[in-house]
Amino acid sequence: MSEPVPIIGGTGALGWGLAMRWARAGQPVVIGSRSPDRAAAAAARVLEAAPGAEVEGSVNAEAARSGPVVFLTVPFRNQSENLTNLREVLEPGQILVDCTVPLAAAVSGKATRSLGVWQGSAAQQAQEMAPEGVTVIAALHTVSAPALGDPRAELGEDVLVCGDRKADKARVARLIERIEGLRAVNAGALEMARIVEQLTPLLISVNTRYKTHAGLRLTGLPEGDHWQ
Amino acid sequence: MSEPVPIIGGTGALGWGLAMRWARAGQPVVIGSRSPDRAAAAAARVLEAAPGAEVEGSVNAEAARSGPVVFLTVPFRNQSENLTNLREVLEPGQILVDCTVPLAAAVSGKATRSLGVWQGSAAQQAQEMAPEGVTVIAALHTVSAPALGDPRAELGEDVLVCGDRKADKARVARLIERIEGLRAVNAGALEMARIVEQLTPLLISVNTRYKTHAGLRLTGLPEGDHWQ
Repeated sequence: MSEPVPIIGGTGALGWGLAMRWARAGQPVVIGSRSPDRAAAAAARVLEAAPGAEVEGSVNAEAARSGPVVFLTVPFRNQSENLTNLREVLEPGQILVDCTVPLAAAVSGKATRSLGVWQGSAAQQAQEMAPEGVTVIAALHTVSAPALGDPRAELGEDVLVCGDRKADKARVARLIERIEGLRAVNAGALEMARIVEQLTPLLISVNTRYKTHAGLRLTGLPEGDHWQ
Repeated sequence: MSEPVPIIGGTGALGWGLAMRWARAGQPVVIGSRSPDRAAAAAARVLEAAPGAEVEGSVNAEAARSGPVVFLTVPFRNQSENLTNLREVLEPGQILVDCTVPLAAAVSGKATRSLGVWQGSAAQQAQEMAPEGVTVIAALHTVSAPALGDPRAELGEDVLVCGDRKADKARVARLIERIEGLRAVNAGALEMARIVEQLTPLLISVNTRYKTHAGLRLTGLPEGDHWQ
């Protein structure tokens, strides 16, 4: 049986959508939240959408200890606080998948604009703040949370994955590809998160114009498993 | 008969590919270059790929006067010089389509990294330097020049178009969509070029890993003409 996937901030739209999709694919998940009650409520909602699934809710610190590949799906405003809390919790060898996007909306700016992060990207900030021995991988910036969280919505798009260790990227890619309709694409080193994180405000701009939930697909990639 | 499309820097890979594709679609083009000989040679090569096409080669200044929608397809290293030259040439009401990407390769850095441009993006630099009354539109950053320049390569991808005047964006979009397999998508205001120009180094990173010429496609957009 596969180990559960902890989702820190799993009561938010993106985290919950991931939890629900994984639960339906038979992947155990643990939803983390600051509040044990909200975690339990989100887990219960996942169970409704995926009867019989292995899903638990718990406080973030407990959740983060429950599996080797931890997803961080919090708003940028809360990223630093969460990373500080995770410092005492994450162990060497764990992978932290940062999905944070530094939207200017975090400081009441436009969602089609982004903030400059000193380290270059939110993911690089996460790498700086993560304990030694924890690899940070950046992913899932372009998947629409409303689409992900709607069990009837069919996905058919790519997830760009950035990181400095190919084996860890591949492990994250396999998890992402357990969700039907998502293909994980190797977008390069973690520093490429500077670009990939910008795709969210770009898609928000497109969504406003086309009244849709756009996703991204790369053309011209070879068929088959990219991660062997 | 439609007015010709001037392509400044039309002897380079992207500009030549555009010229060839438009020529094959029956769209007259004028290839601009610093050197009249190289312009003529590039025009002759277009004629080989598109017999009977209306294609001319001339020096940049002359080319830029030959049609209302001028494409600038030069390396970032040469963008500023070209814009200075065009200052004396472009007239109010003309549209300048900037395809420049500020790759760090311009200063011998990596092609997977970009330079910070003071104005925010190469396109915004173009807008600052263009004569009053000339609208700058940013486009074509994600189309692979080798694929575009290969008449046997089938395209099937999107072109993100940024600009501050929708009517001008639509005009550029119609021209882009004369090329089979290209769909123009409205990505928002010109300032979004800050993000869209970054897609080139991202695709270069993907191309290196997958040994391909990747392109971009947005999922979830409504069918039909987006530009009415």
